[in-house]
Amino acid sequence: MHVAIIGAAGMLGRKLIGRIVADGAIAGHEIDRLTLLDVIAPEPLRGFAGQVDTRAADLSTPGEAEALVAARPDMIFHLAAIVSAEAELDFDKGYRINLDGTRFLFDAIRLASQEDGYRPRVIFASSIAVFGAPLPYPIPDDFHTTPLTSYGTQKAIGELLLSDYSRRGFFDGIGIRLPTVCIRPGKPNKAASGFFSNILREPLVGQEAVLPVPDTVRHWHVSPRSAVGFLLHAATLDVEGVGPRRNLSMPGLSATVGEQIEALRRVAGDKAVALIRREPDAMITRMCDGWAPGFEATRALALGFTAESSFDEIIRVHIEDELGGAL
Amino acid sequence: MHVAIIGAAGMLGRKLIGRIVADGAIAGHEIDRLTLLDVIAPEPLRGFAGQVDTRAADLSTPGEAEALVAARPDMIFHLAAIVSAEAELDFDKGYRINLDGTRFLFDAIRLASQEDGYRPRVIFASSIAVFGAPLPYPIPDDFHTTPLTSYGTQKAIGELLLSDYSRRGFFDGIGIRLPTVCIRPGKPNKAASGFFSNILREPLVGQEAVLPVPDTVRHWHVSPRSAVGFLLHAATLDVEGVGPRRNLSMPGLSATVGEQIEALRRVAGDKAVALIRREPDAMITRMCDGWAPGFEATRALALGFTAESSFDEIIRVHIEDELGGAL
Repeated sequence: MHVAIIGAAGMLGRKLIGRIVADGAIAGHEIDRLTLLDVIAPEPLRGFAGQVDTRAADLSTPGEAEALVAARPDMIFHLAAIVSAEAELDFDKGYRINLDGTRFLFDAIRLASQEDGYRPRVIFASSIAVFGAPLPYPIPDDFHTTPLTSYGTQKAIGELLLSDYSRRGFFDGIGIRLPTVCIRPGKPNKAASGFFSNILREPLVGQEAVLPVPDTVRHWHVSPRSAVGFLLHAATLDVEGVGPRRNLSMPGLSATVGEQIEALRRVAGDKAVALIRREPDAMITRMCDGWAPGFEATRALALGFTAESSFDEIIRVHIEDELGGAL
Repeated sequence: MHVAIIGAAGMLGRKLIGRIVADGAIAGHEIDRLTLLDVIAPEPLRGFAGQVDTRAADLSTPGEAEALVAARPDMIFHLAAIVSAEAELDFDKGYRINLDGTRFLFDAIRLASQEDGYRPRVIFASSIAVFGAPLPYPIPDDFHTTPLTSYGTQKAIGELLLSDYSRRGFFDGIGIRLPTVCIRPGKPNKAASGFFSNILREPLVGQEAVLPVPDTVRHWHVSPRSAVGFLLHAATLDVEGVGPRRNLSMPGLSATVGEQIEALRRVAGDKAVALIRREPDAMITRMCDGWAPGFEATRALALGFTAESSFDEIIRVHIEDELGGAL
């Protein structure tokens, strides 16, 4: 099977590649070819016996999507996006990459489909940013998508296109609305939501972290490992069972910041918790009010998607996957 | 005030123009200039003292949206669309006119807005086709949009763009999800939903009409007069009161075909009802199952949008507006 990953150099892309290379297969289907695409050249692959093509390309450049589709990958993971803050600052870039890029990809597949009956599985990484405040808790599967960012708008449009192109039979699309990925590996970044990961990841290795919001803030989390699990489950799911509503709010863990901190205390002790420095930030706190507190995810759970059920578990996944298994 | 109407040659466009010319104003704002645009040249206007520009143009042709916006209309009604059946048959045409055309318009306004602070009111005719079965009855305001046609998909994408561009301050947009317009004037057409109007309009003038579905079919209706009322109300509504969720399910009348027929009997007698010929059509009946049975329309009602409360009233509106006031 030939698998293409768009956005291969991003955090999720790299984790997905790692898992595919380790498994050598997706749900029993052997992978003999990988096409890895990103705006910056993805890292060379080690430990994979099959054919690997890496491309530094931007899907929104005319011709790039056609070039990708020319090799007729059986499975396409579309993870590429300009993130929320950048799409908000640079209107043109956000719409170009997140909307035009996605549409170019879908249209290239459509034309190939009309040419020779090509019909790949397309897994689209959507986001809970398609929802905008005021939001109920938990958010039901049939709640309307009224995004409050251009990024969320672009993802919601991608979802609509995915469903329509799937309904018409051009490809078999599944859109998965990812919770906030926590604990995000790497260095603290300037994303407003970065603190959710920072307050766990940094203290686990003896570093200070800043908490800008009250302990009562509730949000919707999933580990990077489970996020990759969602992508792989979506890749082999029976689409007949999904029906025409192809976009699914993923399961996750709804937790308050206070609950995150207590999990940290249970796993790493008071010393770790003492490294969290409270520096209230009114702007970030206000932004949090607009973020999703949690979802029912009834359909996704029934379809077999699974996530963590405690923050202790999320922290242990991080220790296993990022810290070599021990503190 | 300068008012532009895109889709001016359509049924709703012509009705809106008639009302604007008759009133000479919208909510007390005098209209001194009209720009009428459609793919076929709109009819010349009689009885309007101000300046009139008519343009035969297609918004999806590069440059046309810019040309329209160059004159900086204060208010833009965007009613143009490839209808549902045609957008389903001709994929490219539907996406070109309904999605690209709308985006070109919004982008032309955005660029003008960035140039000189231009910020018109934009009234976007959306549709209950943004919803797809299975649907609850009544459909609440916060129900998700999962269209089952390319037309509905394109309208749902237009709604998302309208909200995002409004949020960013490029224009003040209001999207109104129109119920099925009934009694639609003119001749019977081949639209699958045409019978809702045919079974009333034809018998009212002594002609036979075909009913292809059972009397129990429930649907969501509004008179052409009220649909124009929605557009005009949206044109002068306080957008601050609407907030960031700029797309509103309009009020209407939920009625079964049987209730339509009983209203016809009350207004025009048994003789009129006898002209309805039942010719069950399994395909049309199946399609009806996917159509919206009715809405709560809580927000729209609170914002002052009003519709008919009985089918007798809808029939009387038709007699007044189309048949000179008497049978």
